This record gives sequence, structure tokens and C-alpha cells, in this order.
Amino acid sequence: MLSLDYANCLADRVGAHGLDPAILAPGGDVATAMAAHTQRLASTRGTNWERWRDLPFDPVRTAHLTAVRDIASRCRGRFDNLIVLGIGGSALGNIALHNALNPATHNLLPDGVRTGPRLFVVDNVDPVAFDNVIEYCESAGGGLHRTLFNVISKSGETAETAAQFMIVRERLRALLGAGHAEQVVAITDPARGTMRQICEREGYPTLPVPDGVGGRFSVLSPVGLFSACMCGIDIEALLTGAAEMDAVCSRPQVERNPAAMLALLLVELGQTKGKTNHVLMPYASNLYSMADWYRQLWAESLGKAKDLAGNTAYTGFTPIKALGATDQHSQVQLYREGPNDKVIGMIEVEKFDTDVPIPTGLGVEALRYLEGRSLGELLSAEKRATEYAFVESMRPNYTIRFPVADAYHIGQFISLWQIATAYAGLLLNIDAYDQPAVELGKQATFGLMGRAGYEKFKNTVDQTLRPTERIING
Amino acid sequence: MLSLDYANCLADRVGAHGLDPAILAPGGDVATAMAAHTQRLASTRGTNWERWRDLPFDPVRTAHLTAVRDIASRCRGRFDNLIVLGIGGSALGNIALHNALNPATHNLLPDGVRTGPRLFVVDNVDPVAFDNVIEYCESAGGGLHRTLFNVISKSGETAETAAQFMIVRERLRALLGAGHAEQVVAITDPARGTMRQICEREGYPTLPVPDGVGGRFSVLSPVGLFSACMCGIDIEALLTGAAEMDAVCSRPQVERNPAAMLALLLVELGQTKGKTNHVLMPYASNLYSMADWYRQLWAESLGKAKDLAGNTAYTGFTPIKALGATDQHSQVQLYREGPNDKVIGMIEVEKFDTDVPIPTGLGVEALRYLEGRSLGELLSAEKRATEYAFVESMRPNYTIRFPVADAYHIGQFISLWQIATAYAGLLLNIDAYDQPAVELGKQATFGLMGRAGYEKFKNTVDQTLRPTERIING
Repeated sequence: MLSLDYANCLADRVGAHGLDPAILAPGGDVATAMAAHTQRLASTRGTNWERWRDLPFDPVRTAHLTAVRDIASRCRGRFDNLIVLGIGGSALGNIALHNALNPATHNLLPDGVRTGPRLFVVDNVDPVAFDNVIEYCESAGGGLHRTLFNVISKSGETAETAAQFMIVRERLRALLGAGHAEQVVAITDPARGTMRQICEREGYPTLPVPDGVGGRFSVLSPVGLFSACMCGIDIEALLTGAAEMDAVCSRPQVERNPAAMLALLLVELGQTKGKTNHVLMPYASNLYSMADWYRQLWAESLGKAKDLAGNTAYTGFTPIKALGATDQHSQVQLYREGPNDKVIGMIEVEKFDTDVPIPTGLGVEALRYLEGRSLGELLSAEKRATEYAFVESMRPNYTIRFPVADAYHIGQFISLWQIATAYAGLLLNIDAYDQPAVELGKQATFGLMGRAGYEKFKNTVDQTLRPTERIING
Repeated sequence: MLSLDYANCLADRVGAHGLDPAILAPGGDVATAMAAHTQRLASTRGTNWERWRDLPFDPVRTAHLTAVRDIASRCRGRFDNLIVLGIGGSALGNIALHNALNPATHNLLPDGVRTGPRLFVVDNVDPVAFDNVIEYCESAGGGLHRTLFNVISKSGETAETAAQFMIVRERLRALLGAGHAEQVVAITDPARGTMRQICEREGYPTLPVPDGVGGRFSVLSPVGLFSACMCGIDIEALLTGAAEMDAVCSRPQVERNPAAMLALLLVELGQTKGKTNHVLMPYASNLYSMADWYRQLWAESLGKAKDLAGNTAYTGFTPIKALGATDQHSQVQLYREGPNDKVIGMIEVEKFDTDVPIPTGLGVEALRYLEGRSLGELLSAEKRATEYAFVESMRPNYTIRFPVADAYHIGQFISLWQIATAYAGLLLNIDAYDQPAVELGKQATFGLMGRAGYEKFKNTVDQTLRPTERIING
């Protein structure tokens, strides 16, 4: 199991910048309140927008595993490239699983060595980046007829994904006519919406974005599982890890429940100690994208202008991704000497899949201490040294420890943060499942793109952003 | 030229969260103070740690271009892979230039289509990631004898780079004996230090890390230019762009000097309006790594515990990278409804190298507005819509506009931020060129790794981080 070490968030380690350990005492007010939140979460799990908690458990689990594996097995061997078209919660989990569990060189490896097709998650509408990927697949990558497109959109109306899909569909149709349906797997609403209509008309195989599972809580649904399965990831182990972490995170005692403790620490340090920036800094390159996934979960769930009573709140914390040891040479100067406004979450892997020995024999005195050691030992020492340096400058921090970074423990990590987010929503008394502030930008985009019914937004945008002289040209 | 549009940082756009435009009036106190800072920077340029300002100008410019091209031309055609061994300022600029100016699929492209060798910048000591890259080059990538290693370390004593280098040197020696020197290009101190000694002993060709150029200000020196040149980037255009931006950023009038204005806005909004988080959000996938380069520059230069008078300061701002439109689906909810503690810097590209039309004919009413438009138009509309949404929720923001994202304008961007950082150092009255807080972690790492003379650090670390019961296991 993962462990959570939070000693460095407490006042006996980081003085006034940490929490008083006494508030955590069993039987105290905080422990009692957290136990009540745990009870509340037990009562709401599997209802409304908390149906993501069902994903690792039967019957949903088996239904999804079966459906995903069925389509994946029909696709296996037929494709050199898999292009995921999705954005936000329909992309970040896919990227995170792939980067965590496949080698950084995956796309470079030859057929037969690589586990599954090359994977490209195209989560932007940048025309250059999009063209690069399509152009590669069309020419050097084996051709579009060897490319599978996995379009992910619950409604089908997300502008970015829809635009990508429209381009891809046209190119596939030009090449393959009606047979192009063999090159598309859609993950969308099982019953309604624009993408569902299109799928039925065109005969695309589909997998569900389940009801009651929001985008940022969907990685353990087919949204994340299909591309992972195609690229050789053990999706069953992911779900098993998630299920076991769910059990641990259902314990009533906050001091034995890592999700409750994580939420409590981060919310308390944020609200009472001004630590409103929450860094997640894996000491493992392949876990860096997990920090990107966390970034959406933590930002979009907790950044809210109103609380549940309708009061003005402006809650939330700014999640920041960093990478150890790399960012010691970029961010640690600030983290130690800048404003003390952060909690730094470090991630440590106890045993790497492989280690690389540092040879003897260079014969340079200043580097002798490295001889006979290994990169893994050096990385671990750097993590510990940096943790010490944070404590020394009174910067609260915690460590999430992975015994190994495999699918089982990645599943645990996902479950841990999702449940911690649910706790944080209760602690902040906000709706952790909506995202009202993204609507205005969408409507304004519609207006600027000339969508019927949104004309007024174009006028408002043009009026608000009318040209001024506050511009410096060369 | 790049332009800087800062209208949305002012109170007439974002109310009390913006600066009073009156403070910017020509002849006022602020304008006068900024003119004095400009004069000060003119007097210190090219001295001490401000020798980076000489890099785009002769004689340094021609000397570097000649030396870099000379070694690059000797290497051209001999290598399938180029592996940069460096960290922090010896890696971030290389990554940023490459990602900005070569396609995301560069490493996948076949010989002859790709401009130069595949590029891997290995800026961590993660054993799995390191092994993936070396293993790929040894087997599928054409073999180590077709792999050039570019080791970058001023002193040669940076633990991460030294460890990587020791491993690589041993593997090359096993394969090629003394001839392995042909596979290494070192960028290091021109006169002294551990790496310099090694280079002389082994006969490696070298390029200089010039005196008075700190790591985070070194991208326009051979540190950044060599790998860029190898991979087909127009390094002369980079320097030309930087030189022209330097001239613009030497103008005494703050309202005509984008570096002075950028520093003024960010420092003032940070210090007087609580906007201590400084987001940089390119609306262009290939510029995302430029935000990572900026992240080191802004964090490490300005995050200081003491000011120049020795007073406790805890200055600095937290630079955050984000990507448009992608992060609209991840961070914008927080940026609009969370604590109003950010300035959001948007980057816009007016003309993309290529655009991708969105075809007509899908026949779905809800998506009709996208038909006949293009990805570039959609991305521009999203940027403008999001800018509007930020203003609507009183979030200060500015836009840096690229006419096109080519080497010339990337050079301008680098120069703009480097000079802005120098101004910010003056405004904060701190030393923008040191990084004292990273020393403790380095020393503690030496202690934990058993380096002679650092034993006491191991004891201190072990004592500080002694095990507690504040740990939750599964």
C-alpha cells in the first residue's frame, strides 16, 4: 500500500507554519468532525456525482472491464497508432496512466517491442501540433488505415474535441468511406447527446462515460481504461488498487485514513496558515503527469466563488506540479526563500523497476563519492536532502510513498486523491462537482465563432476588450 | 516584433484588482524611477553577472556562432541521436528551443525528414527514465556509436549531471576505448573546474559556459545554441531577435519598454494587490516549454529571503505554467472563481505555420458553427473568450503577442524575460543572480551519499527527519 507521511506538516517540525498536533488528537473536535464527514461520504457514495466511487467495484467494474477488453481485443494488431481526441478530464488521466506505466520511449519502440500502438493524446486545438501528429500517422507512421481514433466526449459538444473529430472523420471517410467506422472508438454518453447520435448514425463502436461520473473523476472508467488497455497496462490491477485504497479511506479515524488526513492538512494549512499553493512534486519522472491529472482534480473541484449556502467564498488552492530532482535546480530556491505560502507534497518510489549503477574508475576526487552508487540511490538521497531543507526553512511538506510504481499503486494514488477531494469539498462546504466558471468562456467562444444564438457574446467581448493604447510594440 | 498588451492589468478593466493607470503617467514618480532603473541597467550591462546581455552582440555573438557551428558541422551526419546531459539552466532552455521550433514528432521522423539527430534532454537522475533512453539508443535507435552526448555543466560537480556522465563515459569506453572522445561534446567553464580537467585529459571537444553567465541566463550561449544548431534551428535568427528586443528594452520610457513594463506590472500587482502567483499560459502547444524555462528564471532569480540591505524579505512570486486552450478544461475554473491571487500572462500567436480547416458536411446542427472554420481560428477565439472571462471576473492578465512563432521571435521572447527579470531584481532590491537556498540540499545530498567532509549533514538530516508515528500505512 501507499503510505502518507505528514510529520512535516506539524508545528513540532515547522513551527508556526505547521498545524498544532493537538488538534489531531483522537476524540477531539477535529477527529469527531472528520468522522462525521466519513459517515456522510459513506451515505452519499454511489449517488448523484459520487458514482465515481462505484467504478472499482462490481457490478460496474466487471461490466467496464468486459466492454473495454472486448473492443480492445477486436482492435489489437490492427493499428500502429492510437490517437485520443479529448481534452481536460478526457485526456489528463489517459496521459497520466500512459506516462506512469509505459516507458518514455514507448512511441519510438519498434513493433513487437512496444506494448500496443503508439499513443498520441491530442488535447489541444493547436493547428501545428495537430497537423504534426496526423501528418506523421499519414506518412511515416504506417498510414491512417493503421490509425485508430478514440474520441472522448460525454456530450459531443466540447468545441475542441468536436473540431478535431470533424477533421478526422472527413479524412477517414475520404480514405475508407463508410468503412471508416472501423477506425473509430467513441467514449460518450450511453443514451443521449450529440456524439451518441453521430455514433448511431455512423455505426461507431462505443464505450460509456457513465452517468454521475464527472470528467475529472473519470480516469477509472472506460475514459481512461480503453487507451490504457490498448497500450498494455494492467487495468484490472488499477481497479484493484483503487478498491483497496477506497477501503482504507473509509476508516472513521482520521489518523488512519490517508484521504481524510490529506484533505484536512491541506485545507487547514490553506485556510489557517496561508498555505494556498499546493505543490505536488514526484521524485520519479514517469509520475510527473500524475501531478497534471491532480492539478485538474484539485483546481476545478475546489476553486469556487460560492459556498453551498450561496455565500461569497473564493475558495480553492492553486495546485502546482513540480518534478524532483529536476526542479531542485529551478523551483527550490523559491520554495525555501520565497513567501511561505505552499505545502509541498513529495512523492517517493521505494523500489524502481530498474536501477543504473554509477561505475568506478573516473579517478576524479570531487566525484569519488558517486562511484559504486546508483542513480536510484542518488535520487532517493536528493529527495531526503530536499525534504530536510524544506523543514529547515519551516516549509510544510508531506510524502506519499510508493513501494513500487505499478498499476496497482497508481490505482491507489488515483483513489486517494479523488476521495481526498471529496473530503476537501465537505471541509470547504462547496460543491466539488460543478464547474460554473468555465461556462462564460465557452459561450464567448461560441459567440466569436458565430454560433447561432450567441451573437450577443461577441458584442460583449468586443466591447470589453476594445483596443486601447496600453500596448507596447517593438 | 512581439507586442505586450497590458490593458487588462489596470483598474479601468479589473477594478481594485488592477493598478491605477495614473501611476504610469509619463513624468510621474513611477516613470521616473523606472527610467533610473533603465539607466542603472545600462551602466551594469556586460559586467559581473550581467554578461548575459553581451551574448546577442559582437564580438561574443560571432565567437559563439563560429565555435558552435564548427563543432556541429564536424558532428553532422555522424549521429542518429543527441543526448543532452544537464539539469536546470543546462536543460530547460534546450528543451524550450527544441519544442518551440521543431515538430512535436521530431524524434519519430525518419532520417532525412528529421532536421538533425533525435534529441533527448535527460534532466533527471530517475533510473527508469535514464535507462529507457540509453536502452533505446543502444538497440532500436542505431547504437551508441551513432549517439552523441552533450554534457553541460559549468563546474562538472553538479551531482546529477556528473552521475549521468560517469555512466555514459563508461559505456562509451567499453564500446570505443579512447575513441569515445568523438562521441562527447562538453559545454563547461573555459578555464577551470572538474569538467574542464576531465575534458583536457580525455580530449573532448568543448564549448564555453561564458564567465558571468548564470545557468538560467545561458540559453543564448553555447549551452542552448549547440543542441539547437544540431537540430536545425536558426541560431543566428535567435540572437538577432534577442539583440533587437534588447534595444527596445533599453528605452527610458516605461510605456515604450516592454521588459520594464512587465517587471513593473508583476512586481506592483504582487506587492500591492496580492497577486503573487504569476501564470504564463501560451495558446500554442509548442510554446509550453518556454513557460517551463520562464519558471526557473522568475522563481530562482526573485525568490530571496534577504534583500540587498540584508533585511528579511521573503520576496518572489510563484511562476506557474499553463497551456491554452487545454487548461481551460483544468485550471480556468480556479483562475476565475478561486482566490484572486494571480496575474495571468497569455501568449498569442497571430499566424500559425500551418492551419487545419474544419470541413463542412457533418450535418449536426449543434456543431454547424465550426464548419468551414479552422483550428487556428478556434484557438484564437478561445484565447479571446478566456481573456474576456478573466476580465469579467476581475482577474488581471496581459498578452504577449507573437506575429509568428519562429526563431527570431523566440529570441525576442527570451531577451524580454531576461531583461524583465533584471528590472524585477532592482524593483525588489534583491540579488537576482544568486541561489543561496539550493546549497543546503546539495550539501545534505553529499552527506547522505557519503562524500568526505559532509558527514555532519547526514547526522543532521537523520536527526531532523527521525521517524515518527505521523505516518498512515494501508
